[in-house]
Amino acid sequence: MEAYNVFKDLAIIVAVAKLFGIVARKCKAPQVVGEILAGLLIGPSILGWVNQTDFLVQMAEIGVILLMFSAGLETDIKELLRTGPIALVIACAGVFVPLVGGALLYMGFYGMSPWGSEEFYKAVFIGTIMTATSVSITVQSLREMGKLKGKVGTTILSAAIIDDVIGIIVLTFVIGFKNPDSDPGRVIMNTILFFVLAVGAGFIFYFIFRKLDNRYPHTRRIPIIGLAFCFALAYIAEEFFGIADITGAYVAGIILCSIQDSEYIAEKMDINSYMLFGPVFFASIGLKTNIESLDAGILIFSVAFVLVALLTKIIGCGLIARVCKFKGRDAVKIGVGMMTRGEVALIVSQKGLAVGLMTPVYFTAVIMLIIVSSIATPIILKILYAKDPAEPALEEKTA
Amino acid sequence: MEAYNVFKDLAIIVAVAKLFGIVARKCKAPQVVGEILAGLLIGPSILGWVNQTDFLVQMAEIGVILLMFSAGLETDIKELLRTGPIALVIACAGVFVPLVGGALLYMGFYGMSPWGSEEFYKAVFIGTIMTATSVSITVQSLREMGKLKGKVGTTILSAAIIDDVIGIIVLTFVIGFKNPDSDPGRVIMNTILFFVLAVGAGFIFYFIFRKLDNRYPHTRRIPIIGLAFCFALAYIAEEFFGIADITGAYVAGIILCSIQDSEYIAEKMDINSYMLFGPVFFASIGLKTNIESLDAGILIFSVAFVLVALLTKIIGCGLIARVCKFKGRDAVKIGVGMMTRGEVALIVSQKGLAVGLMTPVYFTAVIMLIIVSSIATPIILKILYAKDPAEPALEEKTA
Repeated sequence: MEAYNVFKDLAIIVAVAKLFGIVARKCKAPQVVGEILAGLLIGPSILGWVNQTDFLVQMAEIGVILLMFSAGLETDIKELLRTGPIALVIACAGVFVPLVGGALLYMGFYGMSPWGSEEFYKAVFIGTIMTATSVSITVQSLREMGKLKGKVGTTILSAAIIDDVIGIIVLTFVIGFKNPDSDPGRVIMNTILFFVLAVGAGFIFYFIFRKLDNRYPHTRRIPIIGLAFCFALAYIAEEFFGIADITGAYVAGIILCSIQDSEYIAEKMDINSYMLFGPVFFASIGLKTNIESLDAGILIFSVAFVLVALLTKIIGCGLIARVCKFKGRDAVKIGVGMMTRGEVALIVSQKGLAVGLMTPVYFTAVIMLIIVSSIATPIILKILYAKDPAEPALEEKTA
Repeated sequence: MEAYNVFKDLAIIVAVAKLFGIVARKCKAPQVVGEILAGLLIGPSILGWVNQTDFLVQMAEIGVILLMFSAGLETDIKELLRTGPIALVIACAGVFVPLVGGALLYMGFYGMSPWGSEEFYKAVFIGTIMTATSVSITVQSLREMGKLKGKVGTTILSAAIIDDVIGIIVLTFVIGFKNPDSDPGRVIMNTILFFVLAVGAGFIFYFIFRKLDNRYPHTRRIPIIGLAFCFALAYIAEEFFGIADITGAYVAGIILCSIQDSEYIAEKMDINSYMLFGPVFFASIGLKTNIESLDAGILIFSVAFVLVALLTKIIGCGLIARVCKFKGRDAVKIGVGMMTRGEVALIVSQKGLAVGLMTPVYFTAVIMLIIVSSIATPIILKILYAKDPAEPALEEKTA
């Protein structure tokens, strides 16, 4: 393929995503919903103007990395430490309830199976797919509403990061029973090691950046070196610790969130993000989908799968949040904010396929879950926040 | 390859390119020189940390497109129309003199050959490789010095655009003699058609954008739709008219350069460019190179090739500029500004290889030309401008 061919895809994605974003905004829905629908429209399901390519997958990956880095940069570190313990409890509930719910759903459709049998692990695997929250859509929705830094926003973000990690540990356990190569103990060790090293290296890099920033405030080198740091941590997390790259990028953002120019860096990242990488990432969710491949049997299972996946997160996380003394509506916000699924669910499915715990037909259900949750979450969140008593409006002019 | 692997390459490129850019700046050389050398250092020639991948090639292509779009946006359209005729004459000289010089060089090394013989066309082909100026390095150097909008800057830019077009016509003619499929007449028609349509469509889009811009000034949609427009024109130019994508992007910039928010768009493009795409583009020039493959015979030819290529541009363009009443030093600036070669020279070489007019050994010479001209041009330009009588300094703080 000639290099210039990517320009056709990019021109279509950027223009249609922006157009749909504006329309979504006019309909009082968040722009991301418009961008995902734009991807669905121009993708193979409907118009077929743009097909998923390796290049678009990698651009989308940069998009989600930039999003998580910005979210990290905008973190209020004191709020994070304060919400951390609660977030951990919420995350555990957000993994456990969907895991059990998904397994029961599978058994409900295909019959109960004895503990430890092949079918039993297949059922558990369906639950495993449901565990990992994909926080990027929620982050973008909260940011559009100016609610990312609040207590609810920070709790959702921390809980989502933690449940990614727990989700990956669960996956490794489940696969461990099928595959003798995988060592669940080592996965747990790697994860602990990553966070220990991140805290240690984090302090060092924080001081290096603070010094650099004090010496050259508001120069280009600050966001540029920050970006390189974010890429490096995303890579190191995946390559050496088996932790999702988005977690690495988020940690990079948290490390830099207390330097003086953190907002300056976030602003530059935002421009890169909303101009090109963001639209490509959100549209690519729609692009991945091929709704032609549906049939009635799969459709019914998929609908049930989506409902169980959404409700178990809302109930699991929401109840625990309520127990942790969040107000009723804030608890629901947390439950809803945690219900989005994304690329991690797809990655988990692919892993399951590879080790024979899943057949390709379930991909439809997973993709439907990603699309429905990605579209429903921002809309419901917006409605929930709109009912709050009036506060000083922080909503950005982003249209 | 897993998507996250690109983060390693990007982290290294962004960090090392910025570091070298800062060092170059400290040595009073333009930052681009540092970025190219960074690419050479981390590439397969020396450290081997980063290898050229399809993804990096495409990122670099976006980089050069953004650069040309910004250059178009920053164009003073009145200045362009005023310098147009002179630029046309300079471009013709800048094609003709290197074409003859390159052919004579080949004959000097490998013996004279009769008009119309196979060897004769091989000689002419070596000249053809030398014809197309790659303006991106010059654009970036002039911009760093705040000299892009001046008479000299505009003349260089227009002449370089025109000589790309002439260069491609010459290539088509030369190949036309070997390959009956290629029709030089149609190429000329396509080129004329593109520019006629660009002017026509340009007016329409200019009015659409002006209306949009007056209604929603300084909103995100203006630069985003502008970017989509740039991508679209880059793609259309290559795909339907066989014109270089960078020419399409430049034309898109010129169409939008007179709307009120043109600077606002250029500013957003610049941020995208200097954060990620720019460093990737400049470093990729260094990455392409493998200096290990050199031997003495090729080295001698290559050195002669580089010298002839540089001097014929300086002499051809410089003399004509002097004839067109540019001051002596300004004429030299134009000659030097026109001497950079880039991706077009590589594309021409690849075409020649495909039709049997060239063997792969000459690639070394072409790559050496690209590197030497890319490094020498900014340095010489900076020296030439430094000798000018003091003017209000417009130099940007870009380090």
